[in-house]
Amino acid sequence: MGHKLRLAKSGSCLEAEMKSYTEYLVFETKKRREMVHITDEVEQVVRRSGVKDGLCFVSPMHITAAIYVNDLESGLIEDIGEWLEKLAPARPDYKHHRTGESNGDAHLKSLLLHHETTLPVTNGRLDLGTWQRVFYAEFDGQRRKRVIVKVLGVE
Amino acid sequence: MGHKLRLAKSGSCLEAEMKSYTEYLVFETKKRREMVHITDEVEQVVRRSGVKDGLCFVSPMHITAAIYVNDLESGLIEDIGEWLEKLAPARPDYKHHRTGESNGDAHLKSLLLHHETTLPVTNGRLDLGTWQRVFYAEFDGQRRKRVIVKVLGVE
Amino acid sequence: MGHKLRLAKSGSCLEAEMKSYTEYLVFETKKRREMVHITDEVEQVVRRSGVKDGLCFVSPMHITAAIYVNDLESGLIEDIGEWLEKLAPARPDYKHHRTGESNGDAHLKSLLLHHETTLPVTNGRLDLGTWQRVFYAEFDGQRRKRVIVKVLGVE
Repeated sequence: MGHKLRLAKSGSCLEAEMKSYTEYLVFETKKRREMVHITDEVEQVVRRSGVKDGLCFVSPMHITAAIYVNDLESGLIEDIGEWLEKLAPARPDYKHHRTGESNGDAHLKSLLLHHETTLPVTNGRLDLGTWQRVFYAEFDGQRRKRVIVKVLGVE
Repeated sequence: MGHKLRLAKSGSCLEAEMKSYTEYLVFETKKRREMVHITDEVEQVVRRSGVKDGLCFVSPMHITAAIYVNDLESGLIEDIGEWLEKLAPARPDYKHHRTGESNGDAHLKSLLLHHETTLPVTNGRLDLGTWQRVFYAEFDGQRRKRVIVKVLGVE
Repeated sequence: MGHKLRLAKSGSCLEAEMKSYTEYLVFETKKRREMVHITDEVEQVVRRSGVKDGLCFVSPMHITAAIYVNDLESGLIEDIGEWLEKLAPARPDYKHHRTGESNGDAHLKSLLLHHETTLPVTNGRLDLGTWQRVFYAEFDGQRRKRVIVKVLGVE
């Protein structure tokens, strides 16, 4: 195998009373499609939760949006938008449109990015790598939408 | 930033004894490919778990199926099937087929939808948005397959 | 509905003190792109955690890598690589490259496979199906990269 694997020394273990803490973020984008950087908002929920070690679940409560983790770099954010449009294009002829809807592509884009993500919490903070940032990806916006953030872990 | 963000008032926090509860659902689809709506079955597992607040993990124990969350609308379900076929087509020439298998596309479709999902549990119920429904996506069926549902949280 | 659904009898429930355990795996691949089988390494972390029932979260701390679950079969692993290259090709003209980077495709491949996964833990072991194996997918390697493994559950 062409790789080296070793365990880092910084393992950690906490045993304590469990806590489950929930908040709902609300977004209303000006544009129909928009990538909103939400790392700071999620980090604040983690702090308010009081959870020291555990998992932070983040998910839109809608089927035309997604949460993803990647770079906060404007060129890449444009690349991601163009890539999603190529793989899940807006088209008039989706069968879903027979219902009167026009957002078939938004459902497919949501599936492509996966609608939810889980983030690790260590020492009371999001335990992300240097360049990992959390984004709310809106594909059918201009209306009020909710994102659930649930932090589960030990105090 | 072209969006408004505010925190909803309905934060909640529960501290209590932790519980981990597991059931296995069994599927045997008549067709090779089939989208099976399983929100009610997963909701019933959550109720039996007695967990009031936490996370519900749902995953096939197979590599040619997936779990996804989206709309219970027959046109869209057809769109999703056609989209998966376009991006991960059934083809004779996958290298995997040298093993005698013929389901290379089913593996790729499973990867595209992501094989597992996590769902939030609040007040003893799945905390889903109005249109969020849970589906078992079978890409190589007509045989017995298992889905694990594990509910982790506080009573 | 063309499927049979029944609940398996093997439900299980554990109530106990909660534990959250974390280790960091370190990878340095020889090739820029490489799929590294890590089921055994993750299983060892689960054993060291002492968690009997819960969830195991696995994620690179980088935005040009992913974790996925599928078959340990060399032909399929090649198929997955070719499929990722087709859907998220290496190209010179990504806008991200204006920053001096050349790895735009690696970001998109990471998004396509989803950067993280969660695995179930039952009876102190990863509760995977017969053919489910865990892979670290590196798309921009040849340097030191970390994967966080966090096990949350009851002892």
